[in-house]
Amino acid sequence: DIYGPSIPTMMGVNDQPGVVGQKILPMISHDIKMMSIGFLIPEDQSVTWRGPMVHQAVQQLLRDVLWGELDYLLIDMPPGTGDAHLTVTQSVALTGGVIVTTPQDVALIDARRGVAMFQQVNVPILGIIENMSYFICPHCSERTEIFTTGGGKRASQDLGVPFLGEIPIDPAVCLAGDQGTPIVRKEPDSPQTQAFRAIADGLKQIL
Amino acid sequence: DIYGPSIPTMMGVNDQPGVVGQKILPMISHDIKMMSIGFLIPEDQSVTWRGPMVHQAVQQLLRDVLWGELDYLLIDMPPGTGDAHLTVTQSVALTGGVIVTTPQDVALIDARRGVAMFQQVNVPILGIIENMSYFICPHCSERTEIFTTGGGKRASQDLGVPFLGEIPIDPAVCLAGDQGTPIVRKEPDSPQTQAFRAIADGLKQIL
Repeated sequence: DIYGPSIPTMMGVNDQPGVVGQKILPMISHDIKMMSIGFLIPEDQSVTWRGPMVHQAVQQLLRDVLWGELDYLLIDMPPGTGDAHLTVTQSVALTGGVIVTTPQDVALIDARRGVAMFQQVNVPILGIIENMSYFICPHCSERTEIFTTGGGKRASQDLGVPFLGEIPIDPAVCLAGDQGTPIVRKEPDSPQTQAFRAIADGLKQIL
Repeated sequence: DIYGPSIPTMMGVNDQPGVVGQKILPMISHDIKMMSIGFLIPEDQSVTWRGPMVHQAVQQLLRDVLWGELDYLLIDMPPGTGDAHLTVTQSVALTGGVIVTTPQDVALIDARRGVAMFQQVNVPILGIIENMSYFICPHCSERTEIFTTGGGKRASQDLGVPFLGEIPIDPAVCLAGDQGTPIVRKEPDSPQTQAFRAIADGLKQIL
């Protein structure tokens, strides 16, 4: 995350990363190594980046962090297709790109553009995830598809890429993020966790 | 909108804008003149912009469009604080900035950074709008604050800027946008429209 780094909050980390020589040590929380621009700047400070600074920052996160042995390296990108995306696709050999979209038409236009960007630079699309797919009312347990329905699946069919799954829009997921403990750790048996696990399992099979 | 232009879809415009000499004619829909990068590129094409191209594009939208007489010129900015924001604050004398946030802590961090950015360049903050504030279940009419509650108001108090209002998360608003007729035009007497009108009235009073 470059422009609006939220990983430190969502993973419950407040410290600053250590430095060894010219290298930065990744932070570890919930058994996950991570690094974010958010660790390096105060929370209430504005970070206004011109393109070349974004390029520099992304390079630093990729090259100057002592990652060590990893199972997977996930890179969380801002919405759209800008400097950060270009730099990442040009700096590392990506296994693939995952597109996260909401179901409505307006969002799907952006998702299609994301797919086109990855294809242009010959990065395979691993699949599409539909976020905010539906809402289960905590009062009456009825399901509402707030942002219409099936847009992610439809886009994946249109574009010929795998559909990885749906994530419900859910107060518990939001609260867990704000509190710094991801829902999969906080409520490991909840339906929300199952939704995330199903997607992770699907991705693992593709890789 | 630069990276993921959705205004053409949400305003129901499919045409390409006309050109007069070196100038571009704004599109008109629902009595509003508008211009968007979305009018100039096909829907399924990727637009990957390096910073200097963003700068160029924003300048073009500001300078090369024959706006004529306007009551207000609203500039819709991408999330975060990057090249587009810098270029706009440096190119035109802005009356003020409006911050749109969702209520949860993770989003408020970004809102605070947005406020800091505007203050850094001496642009007054007109206020904060809280989007996706609450959900009224269409089955049982009960209200759920999906992304917690009151974050926008709290941030506006902390930062000493006006709180402009709350927009509910609502299937009708989303559907209206996808269909190209804004909810205020499609359902002029609905509670959703009232939420938008109250915010617009508040803004008008500040200006």
